[in-house]
Parts: sequence; structure tokens; C-alpha cells
Amino acid sequence: MNFSSKLIEQAVEAFAGLPGIGRKTALRLVLHLIQQEEEVSLHFAETIAGMRKGIRYCSTCFNLSDEAQCAICRDPRRDPSAVCVVESIRDVMAIEDTGQYRGVYHVLGGVISPIEGIGPEQLQIDSLVQRVREGVVQEVILAISPTIEGDTTMFYLSRQLQELPVRISTIARGVSFGGELEYADEFTLGRSIVARIPYKLQDE
Amino acid sequence: MNFSSKLIEQAVEAFAGLPGIGRKTALRLVLHLIQQEEEVSLHFAETIAGMRKGIRYCSTCFNLSDEAQCAICRDPRRDPSAVCVVESIRDVMAIEDTGQYRGVYHVLGGVISPIEGIGPEQLQIDSLVQRVREGVVQEVILAISPTIEGDTTMFYLSRQLQELPVRISTIARGVSFGGELEYADEFTLGRSIVARIPYKLQDE
Repeated sequence: MNFSSKLIEQAVEAFAGLPGIGRKTALRLVLHLIQQEEEVSLHFAETIAGMRKGIRYCSTCFNLSDEAQCAICRDPRRDPSAVCVVESIRDVMAIEDTGQYRGVYHVLGGVISPIEGIGPEQLQIDSLVQRVREGVVQEVILAISPTIEGDTTMFYLSRQLQELPVRISTIARGVSFGGELEYADEFTLGRSIVARIPYKLQDE
Repeated sequence: MNFSSKLIEQAVEAFAGLPGIGRKTALRLVLHLIQQEEEVSLHFAETIAGMRKGIRYCSTCFNLSDEAQCAICRDPRRDPSAVCVVESIRDVMAIEDTGQYRGVYHVLGGVISPIEGIGPEQLQIDSLVQRVREGVVQEVILAISPTIEGDTTMFYLSRQLQELPVRISTIARGVSFGGELEYADEFTLGRSIVARIPYKLQDE
């Protein structure tokens, strides 16, 4: 692309450095900002810079947070005896969106992946073990993707925790609600038959 | 979405305010910036703010520019006697990308559109007429989209310029190079037959 303005070129490069944004999209965003009042762009820039400067990891659960402890860990209505272990903040948000969980979290920051050179020491595993050792936690819920790396991580975690007086569970896997059997993948369907549960009549 | 951090929420809202970026994409961008060094985000924010503060319209052609006159108007190798009239900076970039044009531009800032309430006085039409009156311009090339609004604008412009000693041309329209006849729309194909040109053997 042939920019007659260095300022536009630099701004396009800045947007195009973000994942999933190509130079054509970047140009559209820049021209949009130019069409708006100057205030809009300045506010946008300040928000991004302020976010990056202010954001930190919660000292308890390693969720992203505005303060030393995150809003979930600080919330007195949450049950600190149940800790849901997830890979990333995205998973925290997905579970929070369900409104079904009242415990707290522990964000690993990824999963063990020898191929990508990620070992247990790069993840928040020691801090989880330490947290359980402190005695408040009674249940650790492993909510990690059932991939090879995820299974490895769950296996490693359960080995690290096995000597401690804590219940370890994983989230239920099976055919989605509303999912049709014929479209479920073989592995999920197979496991959901093997791991069948007693049928309960729903209360109406 | 359930953010446990106000800073992340505000940053997501900031990105999601840009055209074509939804909240899921915005979150992905924000998490990407958090994973990078703080410097990356600060540089990004500074680039956007600096661009918006520094950008202005070229006083000659109304292209976006870093200085009072744009790089194209300042370039002594460009021919100031040919002025290509376009709707927006995007069109300038598209023509510059071809590398086939050595004249200068005049950016209207849109086309006449009664439906959207855009009249000639909101466009850079008077400034074009003034520019032609100054006597340097010998040819005005209308490179405006052949839509109803574009045709109206070209008609209006040609009326404004008809008394002045200037040649008016429009860019050639027809079937694309590499385009197959059967896929060309009827209107383009029809006009390209009516406006047929003598066949010239290409020099090899």
C-alpha cells in the first residue's frame, strides 16, 4: 500500500501488528478514527495505555486484575474452599458467564506442552499446591481442555495434589445439551456412554 | 461477558467501538496486548494518539497529510497540470498502488448524495474550480465511482468546469483485464461494446 502520509502508515502498521488484523482492515480503522473527533482517538489511546499500565495478576489466583487481588477473590460471597483450575482468563470468563459457579479460581497460564517448551515450572502449579497446603481449599475442580497437553497437565496436577487432603474433580464431559447424537464426535459419544449417570426426573 | 477487571472491560469497549470489531475480537486483542511487553501497548497508544493529533488535510488537494501540503503535491516529479478527482484517500492509494499515474489529485471527500444530505457545498468542489482557475491545471480526470451519486457528482463538476479552459476526462470503464466476458455484469459489458476502441497490436 502506498501511503502519502507517514502518520497514517505508522498507525496502520500499529493496528496491523495486532492478531487477525490485516493492513486493509487497519487502514479502515485508521480512517474511521480520523473521521471522528480528535477526542475519540485520544480517549482510545489513553484507555489502552492505562489498561496495560494498570493491569496485573491476582496474587491469589493469577487471574488478571486491577488490584493486588482480583474481584472474584475479594468477593466475600464466593466460596474459597472450591478452586476451579483453568488455563486462562478466557476460561474464567466463560465459566463466570454461566452464573453457575460460586467458588474461586486458579489460572495456570497455559498447559504443559513439551513441544512448545512449556514445563510445569512455567505454570502456576506450585502456587496452586501451596494454596491447597494452606488448608482452606477442600475441592480442586480441574476445568482444563481434554487435549493431550490438557490431560498431561491434569495428570501432573493430580499427582502433585494426591498427598494432600483435598477432593479432586473434573468438569463433566459428554454430549452437549441440545446437541444431536449423530453429530457428536465419536470420542465424546463413546465416553458419554461409558460414563453414563443415573437418570433423574427433573423437578418441574 | 463477565469481566473481573474494569480495566479490561474498558479496553474491550474501546476496541469494540471500532467498526467491524466485536467484543470477542476486542477481548482477543486486549489479551494479546497484555501478553506483550508493556512497551508494545504504550507504543501502540502513542502512535494512534500522535497520528490523530498530527494528521491534517493537504491545503491543495485535501488528501490526508502530515504537513500543510501532502507528499504528492510537494513532489517536484509530479505533473501539476493533470488533476485526478477522487472521492477519498482510499482511491488515491488505489491509484498510487498502480504506479501508472504521475499527475496530482483532488480529494472531494465524498459524492453528492441528496439522500444522505450531502450537497456540493460540503465537498471540495469550489476549491477544485478555484484550483483550475489559477491556470496551471490543463486536464481534470474524473475517477469517481459510476453510481447514481457518482454520476450526479461528475455531471455537476463538468458543469462547473465547462467554461474554463481545461480538458475533462474520465477513467476508462469496461471488462476487467483477465475478466471473463460471461461473468461481466450486463451494464459494464454493454457499455464496453458501445465504447469499443481500435484494436492495437501490443509491442513485444
